[in-house]
Amino acid sequence: MKNITIALDAMGGDNSPHEICKGALLACKEFQDLEIILTGDEERIKPCLSKASSGVLGRVRVVHSTETVAMDDHPVTAIRKKRGSSMRLAMEMVRSGEAQGCLSAGNTGAIVAGGVLVVGRLPLIDRPALGVPLPTINRWTFLLDVGASVRSKSFNLYQYAQMGNVYSKKILGVAEPEIGLLSNGTEKIKGDEVVAEAREMLLKSSLNFKGYVEGDDVPWGRADVVVCDGFMGNVILKFGEGLMQGARSIIAEEMGQRFMPKIGMLFMVPMVKALWARFNYEKYGGTPLLGVEGTVMKAHGRSKAPAIFGALSATRNFILKDGVGQIREELG
Amino acid sequence: MKNITIALDAMGGDNSPHEICKGALLACKEFQDLEIILTGDEERIKPCLSKASSGVLGRVRVVHSTETVAMDDHPVTAIRKKRGSSMRLAMEMVRSGEAQGCLSAGNTGAIVAGGVLVVGRLPLIDRPALGVPLPTINRWTFLLDVGASVRSKSFNLYQYAQMGNVYSKKILGVAEPEIGLLSNGTEKIKGDEVVAEAREMLLKSSLNFKGYVEGDDVPWGRADVVVCDGFMGNVILKFGEGLMQGARSIIAEEMGQRFMPKIGMLFMVPMVKALWARFNYEKYGGTPLLGVEGTVMKAHGRSKAPAIFGALSATRNFILKDGVGQIREELG
Repeated sequence: MKNITIALDAMGGDNSPHEICKGALLACKEFQDLEIILTGDEERIKPCLSKASSGVLGRVRVVHSTETVAMDDHPVTAIRKKRGSSMRLAMEMVRSGEAQGCLSAGNTGAIVAGGVLVVGRLPLIDRPALGVPLPTINRWTFLLDVGASVRSKSFNLYQYAQMGNVYSKKILGVAEPEIGLLSNGTEKIKGDEVVAEAREMLLKSSLNFKGYVEGDDVPWGRADVVVCDGFMGNVILKFGEGLMQGARSIIAEEMGQRFMPKIGMLFMVPMVKALWARFNYEKYGGTPLLGVEGTVMKAHGRSKAPAIFGALSATRNFILKDGVGQIREELG
Repeated sequence: MKNITIALDAMGGDNSPHEICKGALLACKEFQDLEIILTGDEERIKPCLSKASSGVLGRVRVVHSTETVAMDDHPVTAIRKKRGSSMRLAMEMVRSGEAQGCLSAGNTGAIVAGGVLVVGRLPLIDRPALGVPLPTINRWTFLLDVGASVRSKSFNLYQYAQMGNVYSKKILGVAEPEIGLLSNGTEKIKGDEVVAEAREMLLKSSLNFKGYVEGDDVPWGRADVVVCDGFMGNVILKFGEGLMQGARSIIAEEMGQRFMPKIGMLFMVPMVKALWARFNYEKYGGTPLLGVEGTVMKAHGRSKAPAIFGALSATRNFILKDGVGQIREELG
């Protein structure tokens, strides 16, 4: 079997290059068919690889680059002007075929811009979408768009549903994904004009479309794929993240002031561990950019090695299952 | 001092009329200046009042009505056609001055429609807004609109900010409320056209406007007032509610399968109680409809007596502080 090559932007994200490299080594150790090209500052990357075994190192190489896309760079300008940046280099390898996919934990807007400008859109796609698999009460729900665009037309939402259907089926392994369209109520009269028109289009499609879903249907896991525009997706994703982190910080604060709960906690360790395993969002840590001519994956800016490992697994999986070809076929 | 009269829709919500009446009695016991007119089915309401003391009962009276607005009624049609419904009766008492405010836990759309059609909009208001005070890490954040409209124009968002400013200052007691506009990022280039234009308008206003806030800024309490359109507000409110309920249900489920955590929990009771008190959203349980010619308050459809009590306190408070007059002045 042929090896799979992923170009990894070693300079993207808050913990680069150290945690990015560590994640790359973990993935190469786990997957014997995986080759990784690290793009970035060779002098800073090399020390991060010093402890790896030769079996792993044989499948990791570095392509030097001094330029980096900053988190606050203007996305399109960064991709256009910083032609030698670690992020752009990784994407050009996807375009040239040198790598079958790329991953970056850097500037989200620049990843989207690079996906469109460097890798290129699929012929029938108006706008690509960023999707994220979320752990819910009873399943993994794939939410898209979480920020590739701001607002969308009905037709875009329709295409997001098609692409989400493919990702849920082929990558997350759901037999007949239930698709929901996020709205402010489940009744037909709800939604704005854009959402209402998308609903009509989806009802006529061959997708397993369940109609409108509401905000609480996401955490309760009442659909396999939830479609919304990028403005909404961005806000609820960050809102949910903030809510969970905030809750944890408050519990820690209340616990810090007390002695008894600390004892109580000792009895709870196995349960907390079980919960953590069940809702470990790093399991499917990659956020794919769907609708482009190659595998482009984004990892969270705060990713550490386990999240990079998870995102690399998702990237590898997307390549193995020919995600891009599947989407091309679904939309054809 | 003159008494305050609130018309209370006894038939609205999932637990009517029993819990609604119970909440009314609690409030009349707590506030000696409070009179409540219960609108609804007298035969069903009377038994719910049987155990009250005469001191309280002297300030509660029932106005009989057999018609009820159902949760799935079309809002405008229900208000127009069901002229004798308990909800409409309560609103007409506000219009006639027989009551200074009204409260319902019924059909949200119908409350908004009744606010506009029966009570009437304030002269300068294009669209009223529903707001909700949310407990966050370090303060109460007033979020609006959470569903009076679907989409909004820039000018509507601007007015929501003005009305939210009044509510935060006068009712929640914040000296100089920090106002944030919900967007998909904090940088100037973020947002859609509507939000960007509202941002420009707010920057020129005399409000203490902080610019864009993101989804996670809500739970982290980085503003006193957060402004968004009703579609967004509805979705994130339900999403947050679902997330917290879902988390509780999962912990309960994991706990049910284990023995040790139950012991651990015993050590945690005081902490859990402290957390509950700190984040008890029933404290400011009322969701005011702002921008109409009278005090119109909504309670959650699932409200039980303590939430109705909280919403009645908020209604009374809004009347005492002349919330409607304050908003009229701010917008004038």
